Amino acid sequence: MKREVYEQARAAALDMFQKAGIALTAEEKENIEIADFGLGEFERTGLSLVTYINCERYCAKEMVLLPHQTCPEHKHAPFGEYSGKQETFRCRYGTVYLYVEGEPASNPAAVLPTGSEDWYTVWHEIVLHEGEQYTIYPNTKHWFQAGDQGAVVSEFSTQSFDECDIFTDPRIKRIPEITD
Amino acid sequence: MKREVYEQARAAALDMFQKAGIALTAEEKENIEIADFGLGEFERTGLSLVTYINCERYCAKEMVLLPHQTCPEHKHAPFGEYSGKQETFRCRYGTVYLYVEGEPASNPAAVLPTGSEDWYTVWHEIVLHEGEQYTIYPNTKHWFQAGDQGAVVSEFSTQSFDECDIFTDPRIKRIPEITD
Repeated sequence: MKREVYEQARAAALDMFQKAGIALTAEEKENIEIADFGLGEFERTGLSLVTYINCERYCAKEMVLLPHQTCPEHKHAPFGEYSGKQETFRCRYGTVYLYVEGEPASNPAAVLPTGSEDWYTVWHEIVLHEGEQYTIYPNTKHWFQAGDQGAVVSEFSTQSFDECDIFTDPRIKRIPEITD
Repeated sequence: MKREVYEQARAAALDMFQKAGIALTAEEKENIEIADFGLGEFERTGLSLVTYINCERYCAKEMVLLPHQTCPEHKHAPFGEYSGKQETFRCRYGTVYLYVEGEPASNPAAVLPTGSEDWYTVWHEIVLHEGEQYTIYPNTKHWFQAGDQGAVVSEFSTQSFDECDIFTDPRIKRIPEITD
């Protein structure tokens, strides 16, 4: 990701945090993580994050989705002694359409990013409005998309190992690379 | 605690959540936990809580302190196979004066609840403004008090066993009892 794209995305995330009334330190504002998943279409497929704490015993993050932005399908598998990441999403602002394994929605609200349709395979729909939450257990495929206003979502979880996330789309690189 | 006191405290907590811009479901609003620690002076010594999730692998809560309200000194000790609760406090609204073990503040901001001075023994001061956070490790004595505006604080932690908290004040009962 080009530095210019990063800075635009960072400004958009800060705007969403402000709308949601979520305070960040100057250091957190400076270091917002912008994930474009290596697809180069951040506004459609991407996620902005602030990690409050990620330690061996627990993890907490704040995630931002721009309007209609999608976090692509993935799962958190067990590895070694770790039984896999469990996470609870709590919608703080806007609306999130979350898709997990299970009975597919007959008329899902989300619209897939064009050209990536093959990499979305689970369609059990959970709609999270402000104040609503849902827990995703390890090894469960999931993806999510914001509604018209975008969304800010708190994630409470076990330790995160983002580099170990397993994405359905083989083109994806989870860890952002910023170039000048 | 009398039902009437509970309902007044619940209304005050809801007002603080609204000021902080934190959305709750109808069920969460109905079931806010009001802890007066059995001291019968809730406005001075007390805490209001919403537990978002408390499972074996992690826990997340939102805590409310009214202006100048104090959560009394306690610690989370290890027991059995559990190495003790570790918790990260993140101030979402207002200001929190947090006291932990360590070098005592020469001029601490908090004013102790009259008559309970003997039960506050740690004075290392951490001031948390909106967006600031601090992690408390197991078996560390701590207590906290809100500033003029009150405070709303997110707690990210390992599993909670509130009934096992060890309070310095022997009069305290952590688990609220509501009577009609």
